[in-house]
Amino acid sequence: MYPASLELLIEEFNKMPGIGHKSAVRLAFHVMNMPNEKVEKFISAINGAKTKVHLCSSCQNLTDKPLCDICSSQKRDKSVICVMESPKDVTALEKTREYNGLYHVLHGSISPIDGVGPEDIKIKELIARLSGEVTEVIMATNPTVEGEATAMYIARLLKPMGIKVTRIAHGIPVGGDIEYADEVTLQRAMEGRREI
Amino acid sequence: MYPASLELLIEEFNKMPGIGHKSAVRLAFHVMNMPNEKVEKFISAINGAKTKVHLCSSCQNLTDKPLCDICSSQKRDKSVICVMESPKDVTALEKTREYNGLYHVLHGSISPIDGVGPEDIKIKELIARLSGEVTEVIMATNPTVEGEATAMYIARLLKPMGIKVTRIAHGIPVGGDIEYADEVTLQRAMEGRREI
Repeated sequence: MYPASLELLIEEFNKMPGIGHKSAVRLAFHVMNMPNEKVEKFISAINGAKTKVHLCSSCQNLTDKPLCDICSSQKRDKSVICVMESPKDVTALEKTREYNGLYHVLHGSISPIDGVGPEDIKIKELIARLSGEVTEVIMATNPTVEGEATAMYIARLLKPMGIKVTRIAHGIPVGGDIEYADEVTLQRAMEGRREI
Repeated sequence: MYPASLELLIEEFNKMPGIGHKSAVRLAFHVMNMPNEKVEKFISAINGAKTKVHLCSSCQNLTDKPLCDICSSQKRDKSVICVMESPKDVTALEKTREYNGLYHVLHGSISPIDGVGPEDIKIKELIARLSGEVTEVIMATNPTVEGEATAMYIARLLKPMGIKVTRIAHGIPVGGDIEYADEVTLQRAMEGRREI
């Protein structure tokens, strides 16, 4: 219904995750009505993210430097590595400002059903960086079947190397309601109970 | 928390209407992970919409031709013009396939509170195209205070020219519930009642 050049842009937005047709129309109109210099800024941001962002040579997190800020920081505790599935997970944990060690991003989890084996995620990169300095590896993969399997797989690889491998606690979320917690979460919460 | 070049793209998406921070992160990651040729296609769609789309010289709707498809069609009834506030309204009415006349897009409505006067929307362009061929002008502006005021303003301009000016009907939406209709809509529905 709209001019072909506009329909093309609507279609492009419509292909993006979580963007339905109405949102795509709204975004396409917005971009079309943006002043030229703002459109140029948007396009250069796209190109910047595409060309400058790559994986940190050590922790495999996203960075635009050879070594990411966390890996190159003098203030971080280099004896602990927290293993996570995605850069978004790292950002979530960093926001808590509670963790001061290093990270390792797997970029996925082992999932035979999706054809993802141990060699498809950044496990060998993790093994390669385990010097004598590292004393603990925290498995902070998601509490899903795949995340658990990945944590178990890596734990089994690391234990013979004499490294302490821990798993983050699962339980009732803070502010959550026990009445509505699912059985597995409740079971995990009971298993992980601590003396107060 | 993300590399600067990625944060920049997240920020750009975050500026768009209806895109919160989480959606912006999702979209930026999506674009960053798109293959190069798809990113190029996306950027060329943006540039295409920016440079090729302009207003139809007659009806002021969006088009990438000198005269839009509706204005240049031989099949449309050139004696009726439906006046609407935005190109999106035209698309909505076209989808019904019920209307066969021409359109005129005002690109807004008269709203003194927002500093929008009659000269700020495409009213003079409407007057300019009213040849002897046009016998009816349908005011299909929104049923808001501004839309009503705009319809009244234009009606008062056109009536001395001997052109029939009509207003679309307002009432209970089809499938709507009378119980939940607001008073004004219900009042309009009563006023607009017809014999069956």
